[in-house]
Amino acid sequence: MSVKKAAARKRFEDVYITVRDELLAEFVDHGMPKEAIEYYKRNLDYNVPGGKLNRGLSVVDSVALLKGRELDEDEYVKAAVLGWAVEFLQAYFLVSDDMMDSSVTRRGQPCWYRVPDVGLIAVNDALLLEGAIFQMLRRRFRSEPYYVDLLDLFHDISYKTEMGQLIDLLTAPEDHVDLSKFSLERHKLIVIYKTAFYSFYLPVALAMLVCGFPIEKAKPSDPDTYKLAESILIPLGEYFQVQDDYLDYAGTPEQIGKIGTDILDNKCSWCINTALAVATPEQRAVLDANYGRKDADAEARVKAIYKEVGVDERYAEYEQSAYERISELIEQVPEVKGRGGDAVLKREVFRSFVNKIYKRTK
Amino acid sequence: MSVKKAAARKRFEDVYITVRDELLAEFVDHGMPKEAIEYYKRNLDYNVPGGKLNRGLSVVDSVALLKGRELDEDEYVKAAVLGWAVEFLQAYFLVSDDMMDSSVTRRGQPCWYRVPDVGLIAVNDALLLEGAIFQMLRRRFRSEPYYVDLLDLFHDISYKTEMGQLIDLLTAPEDHVDLSKFSLERHKLIVIYKTAFYSFYLPVALAMLVCGFPIEKAKPSDPDTYKLAESILIPLGEYFQVQDDYLDYAGTPEQIGKIGTDILDNKCSWCINTALAVATPEQRAVLDANYGRKDADAEARVKAIYKEVGVDERYAEYEQSAYERISELIEQVPEVKGRGGDAVLKREVFRSFVNKIYKRTK
Repeated sequence: MSVKKAAARKRFEDVYITVRDELLAEFVDHGMPKEAIEYYKRNLDYNVPGGKLNRGLSVVDSVALLKGRELDEDEYVKAAVLGWAVEFLQAYFLVSDDMMDSSVTRRGQPCWYRVPDVGLIAVNDALLLEGAIFQMLRRRFRSEPYYVDLLDLFHDISYKTEMGQLIDLLTAPEDHVDLSKFSLERHKLIVIYKTAFYSFYLPVALAMLVCGFPIEKAKPSDPDTYKLAESILIPLGEYFQVQDDYLDYAGTPEQIGKIGTDILDNKCSWCINTALAVATPEQRAVLDANYGRKDADAEARVKAIYKEVGVDERYAEYEQSAYERISELIEQVPEVKGRGGDAVLKREVFRSFVNKIYKRTK
Repeated sequence: MSVKKAAARKRFEDVYITVRDELLAEFVDHGMPKEAIEYYKRNLDYNVPGGKLNRGLSVVDSVALLKGRELDEDEYVKAAVLGWAVEFLQAYFLVSDDMMDSSVTRRGQPCWYRVPDVGLIAVNDALLLEGAIFQMLRRRFRSEPYYVDLLDLFHDISYKTEMGQLIDLLTAPEDHVDLSKFSLERHKLIVIYKTAFYSFYLPVALAMLVCGFPIEKAKPSDPDTYKLAESILIPLGEYFQVQDDYLDYAGTPEQIGKIGTDILDNKCSWCINTALAVATPEQRAVLDANYGRKDADAEARVKAIYKEVGVDERYAEYEQSAYERISELIEQVPEVKGRGGDAVLKREVFRSFVNKIYKRTK
C-alpha cells in the first residue's frame, strides 16, 4: 500500500473510533450494564473495521471527486460517517450470511457466530449492527434536507440485498445440489440484488446526496442523476462479482488471499453457469455428478470441464466486453451540477471504480 | 370473543391481505423468480398474522380514542397499516428470538426456523420482515409531514428492543445458570427495553403521530406529549410483563394456553428475582441447585421455595400497587390537543390499556 493510501485509510479508521465511542456512550446513557457495553464493543470491533474498507473509502473518494477539491474537516467527517454506515451494513450482511452459509472463517479469523461465547447471539448482534446505522445517521444528519432520502436509500438497498440473499439461498442451498436451478440469467439477478446495489450504487448515491444532488428533478427535462449513476454502477458491480467468481476458480491463494471453495460449496458462480450454458450432455452429466460435493477429486473433475468448455477464454472475452461497454456508458454521462453546492457529476467518479477493477487479479 | 371484537379483528385482518399483496407485487416488479415470491408469501403468512394482534389493534383503537370518533375509510386504513407495521416488527423479533432461544413451538405450530425447508434461511426471513415495514411506511406515508418521525420512531424502538434482547441473552443464557447475574433491577431493565417500548409505547406513539401530535414542542411551556405517554406506558408494559412472568408460574394451562417453562428455561423472570431478593441462604442454595435444569423435580423444588417465600402474596401486592400508581399517573395527564387535527390526548387511551390488563388471568 502506498504511503498516501495508508494515510487515507488511517484517517478513515479514526472516524470509526469516534462513531463507535458515540454508540457505546448511548448504551451507557440507557443504563446498560457493563457486560453489555463490553460485549457490544467486541461485536463492533470484531465485525466492522477489519475488511478492505473499499466500500466505505469509496464514499469519501466520491465526495471529493464530485466536489472537485479537498474536503474540509466537517465535510470529511460527514462523508466518512456515511462510508462507515456502508461498512456497518456490510458487517450486518456478513455476520448473518456467515450463519446461513455455515461459513467457518472470515477475514482470516473465525466467523463471529463461531466465537465460543457468541453463538446464536450473533443473530441479535447483526440486528444491532443494522440498528447502529440509523443511530449514526440521526446523530449527524437529522437536520439536513436530505436526511429522509438517506433513510429511504438505506432501506431500499437493504431490502434489495435481502431479496438477493433470498434468491441465492433458494437457488444454491449449501446442502442440496440441483444445477437445473442455475442459469446465467439467475446468476445475474442474484449478483445485482445481493451485491451490486449495496457495494457499488449505495456508496456513490450517498456521496451524491451529501453533495446536494436532488432525488426529485426540478424540471422534467433534467437528467435523473441517480438513475444515470445506477445504470453504470449496477453493470459495474455485476462485472466485479463475475471477476470475484472467476478468481475464486482461477486465482492462486497468493493472489486472492484464500482458497476458493465455490465448487465445493455449490455456489451459483459465473463459472458454473457459463459451463452449463455450453456443456454437451456428457459434460453436463459430469458437472451434475461432481458440483457441490465436499470432495477434492470431484472438484478437480469440475475444473477439468471448465477447461474443456473454455471458461478462461470466455472470461477474457467477458471482461473485455464489460470494460468497453461500461466505459462507453461513462462517456455518455452529462456532467451536470448538483443543487446549491459546487458539486458536478464527474465521469471520473465512475472511471475511478473501473480503473480499480479492470484486470484485477486479487 | 364478542361479535363486535370479531368484526374489528376481521376488518383489521383484511388490511393485512392488502399490505401483503403489495409487498408481493413489488417482488414481481423486481423480477424475482416465482419460487422466491411463493417463499416470501409463506414467510409472511406463517409469521405475521397468527398472533393475538393486541399490539396492532391497539394502534387502531388508540387513533379512534384520540380523535374521539369513528374513523373514515382512509383514516382506518392508515391506522391499520401502522398497526400491521407493529405486528411485522413483532414477527421479526419472534422469528429471530426463537432461533436464539432454541424454542420449539410458537403460537401452537413449529417455530419458523424449525420448518424443514427453512432452517437458517430464517435469519434472512427476519431481516425481510423488518425491511417490509419500511416498504409499507414509504408507500402510504412518504408525503406526510410526520413521515421522518415515523422512521425515527421505528429505528429508535427497534434498537432499544435489540438492546433489551442483548441484556436478556447475557443475563440468562439458556445453557448456563448463574443466578448471581439476576436481580429485580436487571429484570426491570430487560423488561422495559425488550418488551415495554415496542409493545406499549410504540402503538400509542404511532397513533399520536398519525393524529398530528408534534414531536417538537411549539413553545417551551407546552407539555411533551410523547414523554407523558412514555411515562405511563413504560410502567404499564413493565406491569404487563410481570403478570406474564407470574402467570407462567401460577397460571393453569387452561388459562394461559401453554405450559409455563420459565423455571426450566433459566428465564430471568419476576418470580425468581422476587424469590432471590428475600431467600434465606438455605432457600438460595435450593434455587441455585434447581433453577434452569431441564427436570420436573427440580422445577417442583423451585416452586416450593416460591410458595415458602410468598411469591403469590408479593405478586398480589405488586399488582395492586402497580395498578394504583399507574391510574394516578393517568389522572394527571393534561388532555391537550394535537396540531391541526381534532385529536385530544385523552386519558381514556391509557385507561383502556390498564382495563385490558388489570387482574387478567390469561
